[in-house]
Amino acid sequence: MNRHTQEAGLHGVWLSEPSASTVEVAALAGYDTVVLDVEHGSFDLAALNWLLPFIRAKGMEVIVKVLGPQREAIQQALDLGANAVAIPHVESVAHAEQVCGYAKFPPLGDRSFAGGRVSDYRGFDDAWVAEQDSGTRCYPMIEDASAFADIEQILALDSVDGIFIGPSDLSLRRDRGAYTAGEDDLTDIAYLADAANAAGKPWILPAWSPAEQKLAVEKNAHVIIATMQYGALLTGLSGASAALREIQAQAGE
Amino acid sequence: MNRHTQEAGLHGVWLSEPSASTVEVAALAGYDTVVLDVEHGSFDLAALNWLLPFIRAKGMEVIVKVLGPQREAIQQALDLGANAVAIPHVESVAHAEQVCGYAKFPPLGDRSFAGGRVSDYRGFDDAWVAEQDSGTRCYPMIEDASAFADIEQILALDSVDGIFIGPSDLSLRRDRGAYTAGEDDLTDIAYLADAANAAGKPWILPAWSPAEQKLAVEKNAHVIIATMQYGALLTGLSGASAALREIQAQAGE
Amino acid sequence: MNRHTQEAGLHGVWLSEPSASTVEVAALAGYDTVVLDVEHGSFDLAALNWLLPFIRAKGMEVIVKVLGPQREAIQQALDLGANAVAIPHVESVAHAEQVCGYAKFPPLGDRSFAGGRVSDYRGFDDAWVAEQDSGTRCYPMIEDASAFADIEQILALDSVDGIFIGPSDLSLRRDRGAYTAGEDDLTDIAYLADAANAAGKPWILPAWSPAEQKLAVEKNAHVIIATMQYGALLTGLSGASAALREIQAQAGE
Amino acid sequence: MNRHTQEAGLHGVWLSEPSASTVEVAALAGYDTVVLDVEHGSFDLAALNWLLPFIRAKGMEVIVKVLGPQREAIQQALDLGANAVAIPHVESVAHAEQVCGYAKFPPLGDRSFAGGRVSDYRGFDDAWVAEQDSGTRCYPMIEDASAFADIEQILALDSVDGIFIGPSDLSLRRDRGAYTAGEDDLTDIAYLADAANAAGKPWILPAWSPAEQKLAVEKNAHVIIATMQYGALLTGLSGASAALREIQAQAGE
Amino acid sequence: MNRHTQEAGLHGVWLSEPSASTVEVAALAGYDTVVLDVEHGSFDLAALNWLLPFIRAKGMEVIVKVLGPQREAIQQALDLGANAVAIPHVESVAHAEQVCGYAKFPPLGDRSFAGGRVSDYRGFDDAWVAEQDSGTRCYPMIEDASAFADIEQILALDSVDGIFIGPSDLSLRRDRGAYTAGEDDLTDIAYLADAANAAGKPWILPAWSPAEQKLAVEKNAHVIIATMQYGALLTGLSGASAALREIQAQAGE
Amino acid sequence: MNRHTQEAGLHGVWLSEPSASTVEVAALAGYDTVVLDVEHGSFDLAALNWLLPFIRAKGMEVIVKVLGPQREAIQQALDLGANAVAIPHVESVAHAEQVCGYAKFPPLGDRSFAGGRVSDYRGFDDAWVAEQDSGTRCYPMIEDASAFADIEQILALDSVDGIFIGPSDLSLRRDRGAYTAGEDDLTDIAYLADAANAAGKPWILPAWSPAEQKLAVEKNAHVIIATMQYGALLTGLSGASAALREIQAQAGE
Repeated sequence: MNRHTQEAGLHGVWLSEPSASTVEVAALAGYDTVVLDVEHGSFDLAALNWLLPFIRAKGMEVIVKVLGPQREAIQQALDLGANAVAIPHVESVAHAEQVCGYAKFPPLGDRSFAGGRVSDYRGFDDAWVAEQDSGTRCYPMIEDASAFADIEQILALDSVDGIFIGPSDLSLRRDRGAYTAGEDDLTDIAYLADAANAAGKPWILPAWSPAEQKLAVEKNAHVIIATMQYGALLTGLSGASAALREIQAQAGE
Repeated sequence: MNRHTQEAGLHGVWLSEPSASTVEVAALAGYDTVVLDVEHGSFDLAALNWLLPFIRAKGMEVIVKVLGPQREAIQQALDLGANAVAIPHVESVAHAEQVCGYAKFPPLGDRSFAGGRVSDYRGFDDAWVAEQDSGTRCYPMIEDASAFADIEQILALDSVDGIFIGPSDLSLRRDRGAYTAGEDDLTDIAYLADAANAAGKPWILPAWSPAEQKLAVEKNAHVIIATMQYGALLTGLSGASAALREIQAQAGE
Repeated sequence: MNRHTQEAGLHGVWLSEPSASTVEVAALAGYDTVVLDVEHGSFDLAALNWLLPFIRAKGMEVIVKVLGPQREAIQQALDLGANAVAIPHVESVAHAEQVCGYAKFPPLGDRSFAGGRVSDYRGFDDAWVAEQDSGTRCYPMIEDASAFADIEQILALDSVDGIFIGPSDLSLRRDRGAYTAGEDDLTDIAYLADAANAAGKPWILPAWSPAEQKLAVEKNAHVIIATMQYGALLTGLSGASAALREIQAQAGE
Repeated sequence: MNRHTQEAGLHGVWLSEPSASTVEVAALAGYDTVVLDVEHGSFDLAALNWLLPFIRAKGMEVIVKVLGPQREAIQQALDLGANAVAIPHVESVAHAEQVCGYAKFPPLGDRSFAGGRVSDYRGFDDAWVAEQDSGTRCYPMIEDASAFADIEQILALDSVDGIFIGPSDLSLRRDRGAYTAGEDDLTDIAYLADAANAAGKPWILPAWSPAEQKLAVEKNAHVIIATMQYGALLTGLSGASAALREIQAQAGE
Repeated sequence: MNRHTQEAGLHGVWLSEPSASTVEVAALAGYDTVVLDVEHGSFDLAALNWLLPFIRAKGMEVIVKVLGPQREAIQQALDLGANAVAIPHVESVAHAEQVCGYAKFPPLGDRSFAGGRVSDYRGFDDAWVAEQDSGTRCYPMIEDASAFADIEQILALDSVDGIFIGPSDLSLRRDRGAYTAGEDDLTDIAYLADAANAAGKPWILPAWSPAEQKLAVEKNAHVIIATMQYGALLTGLSGASAALREIQAQAGE
Repeated sequence: MNRHTQEAGLHGVWLSEPSASTVEVAALAGYDTVVLDVEHGSFDLAALNWLLPFIRAKGMEVIVKVLGPQREAIQQALDLGANAVAIPHVESVAHAEQVCGYAKFPPLGDRSFAGGRVSDYRGFDDAWVAEQDSGTRCYPMIEDASAFADIEQILALDSVDGIFIGPSDLSLRRDRGAYTAGEDDLTDIAYLADAANAAGKPWILPAWSPAEQKLAVEKNAHVIIATMQYGALLTGLSGASAALREIQAQAGE
């Protein structure tokens, strides 16, 4: 495990569309990790091709939440320079073994060699393969009930470098309906955190509310994703409009 | 079923590449529904991210014919704001049940929560889930012989809100070779239309010729797709060139 | 003057890069006017071509702060569907007369006919010309000392529909150095506001601070631009990170 | 003058946004010349960089109607591979001399050397300069009253290879209000055509109506622009919708 | 088999990102075939939509190495105008039969009809289907140990028009670790070449080193891919910098 | 003058289109300065908006050769984060004074304040203005005969931080026809270099040939631009194709 993954409490920001300025603003605001939500956002390949090396050149880490649990989605993120992939909707230990294998080269897994950015636009050798396999990270997302049930075995896999929790989908799939960050939700999250800590592997949590953040801090989450690009924008824009409305109200309009 | 799906005879236009002006021209020409052919066209995510809300802000409905029968393709269209998805190459009732499930949240299906446009860039609750499930529509495409055979059972599925017929592929797969809009083709279409009407669910038809359009009108197709973006352009450009050639011919050139 | 320009106290938001989601978030946050800073931002034509009609289809007004005081920059914004243009670095009444002329058709000015979006992709007639000339608005920016000096004459021009104040550049050019929103700055703004009100034409102000906003409200600014896209994002991201840091501090980290 | 410019009656199509398929459809419909309306359309540089060589590789000619009468706009179109530039709003013979000079290298004019596509990505020699100057063409647009007045002198300039008439703006600026293709409009066009023919230089006309087209044919216009991209689309889409409406009406809806 | 596939020793270039100028430079440098590495590169659909017809209009052949062994990836490449598809990670003869079927229409395979570029934006008939099936080519990639084992049966499939060898992944999966173009690697390549030649079907090889190129020439490879876009750039840029450094060294810096 | 401008003999690379990988390859090849040819290349604003901060985050310097000698072109490059602007076709000392003024804030010049990237997305103060004025650099291009004549006075201007020589255009405009890097060309370059050295200001030269490079090294050019993106690609692609052809020839083809 490298320096970065040993740390706890890193501040993450969740991006849904590419924007160089948003990355710069996030750096100014103190974030050190950027999560790109390729699954639900609008990141095309041409954008990822500059966004990934840009985030890294800024000295931040980038976790790509890939389109889905498929070889191609995982491979492209690593080819273009992601530090880590988070893989949505991993369904079981067997599924995790298969799809996390796409993040590691043979014999550990079944990743395909690209010959571009990550090998400095040159060929490769066995030392490079070893370095890639240990230097990039694969985080299955735990957001399905069946993956929740298999958590210990999933964490025991060699190709699994930690877990990324998806609270909203987990609530829907653990029969609690829409996510409320309620007591049962937090119990589930704590259970997963404990499993990751017991396995000595990092865990990552999107945590918008104080309750979620406290839990994440307490249980040493590796990255705590504090807000989303659009959520922060909504907060900022709403605040400015409300302040102006207040001034207008005082002026008797 | 909402107001829109209860109507019959809506005019649809089939787009193959993104263009704000094409949407505006279509609105001026009287269309009320836009079909985006993501399967065979060239729509990247950045384009869908403005095109979908633009079509809706213009007061038109947008049906996304997604890349294929996969969770990710279906999810992205609904996340970005589609009114409906049309899913190509659904092969059977079992296949329909699985893939249409990706268009509905648990417990009805297995859609994943995005947290962006469709939930107003905020969180969600159970009422919102119910509203999404009923307010967006899932149309399996009937263009494989095996789906044709299962039509009644497909229409009986809760996650199926209607059907979208693919006449060209259906002809190839029902052993009639290239589609000619011939008698057997129309018989197949009528059979599917009757099944949809019997099930009380809307059906949609690309119908370029008068014969196809008459059938669609007669059997109350919900949306009749009257032309394609490129086909209309070819008609318009050919007409203008032919008119000029006629004038040149008259002038004795 | 149309309904919109008669209103005062509209909430404006300042955009520096195109983003459909940012427009939607702004609408949710209560803004009714969007200013696109083409001068200093990164808006290419392909983006403006969907962004302008999208903002209007959402029911908001769009003011394009064009690249510079040139025919082409002004023309493109109006061709693509802007409600108004704000023209940077207008230097004098003579300059204003020339460049605001590019926003109006002959005989009033020298705008060129495009034949696209704003004439419904068809030809035009004299009634349409009259409607365009009155329905779209031209705002010279007052941010140069020489324009400040000519303010009454500039406001008297037929082609001038109001003014857009540029406080930062005005401070630099009125020998006060970097803008501080200090007393002299506010005096300048008040002077321009009074001139506009006396001329019966709207005035527009970017007003980030309470002092600027109070002045704008008091003197009936037509649009009060309450914040910038990146500024709101910085506020939102900084707030979320600070809140998390506080929780981490409390936890004894 | 090369083979292409000696021909008369070529069919031109007017594009307002980049689209590879539109070029292909135009080729199928029989057009041999494409006019890109950079002045009023939405063509960014990245798009021009593939669109220009694509049109030429298809065996068609491409005339770029540049952003305005400026060195940079003219230069970019020629650098990226245009066969010809049409320059809007040339105001007089002196203006024509200056701006058409930007389309020719010294000593004939003042074009700047790029070192890219048009010199095969290599250096250059005097023979190449001569070939570029004669092989690419510069067409001032005649759409201002003052240019109309100077037409013979403009046509006499060495750097002027022909003229491109702008009927809509010409009508507005010759005090006839909005363009109607009326008798006076046609008289103006005929006058310019006669001048070009007398000078032995090609002339080009956007000619949507039969009357305009007859005049263009009769007076040997080099390129007759028969329709616009959006106009053809509107014709095609309107026709398809009207045909369907007719069928719906017959069915008693 | 058409003229093109009967030739041997064609020069191929491997592209990883879209660039019109790179295609032009490759044509000037003598290449006649372009391979687009969609699997590991950054080609979005909007780019493929102009790049594919551009390469063909330049008189070159284009092989699209698609994203993966899926219907959608194969279909899009053929819809947009590829001469051939190379399909990564085909695992066995059964897998080859399934996925190569997506490159051929029924009854030969299961390709879906698009109605765009390749059918001249019109409908289709049985002759067109036959022409598409024989005129476009499907090359499974041989880069997995299990496909290597099935090579004769794969080459015997009707839907397989030849093979594309992937030496780097093959080395990793045939237990030799990172690819070195060593003796065992060349033995594997020769084995596959012999199998293709025995089957009378073309084979294609990325061959950067003299040893690989000699083998490819000797065994009549159809296309020999001589270099990659980024590799050539690295060679060119490194050479220029080294030459300058030499001059600086001589000057005693 | 900052550390960077005091150095001599930096290796520059000339880019004509945006590409993150090209920047990375250039860094690997040892370049420390990137010149973006906005004047003749194809850089849209959206691309510049990520490319400029990316080059800087990689630890390289970026000089933007702007579209032309206009306020807007200069301003945008500095707003988006350029270290320096090179301004084409400066014609005289008076012209230099005017246009280089757009690169410096009042009272030194007339640059406009943007409020984005370069002020960390916040407001500004007088110290920031001073730092911007000294920290960014303005290089008029010397490529017109009249600027050549005024060289000493141009170099004496406060707003001029050095010069960027344009040998091709200079040859055309100093009546030597196409540039050959001949003796008279080198004499002109040496003359300008001596003037810059005498003024104690850096000078920059595109220098493809050994003769040009020797002169640049000898006279302490600040940046020596050793090659162009497309030129390097042509060298690399041609070399690879020639090597393969040689092997084919040896094999008796």
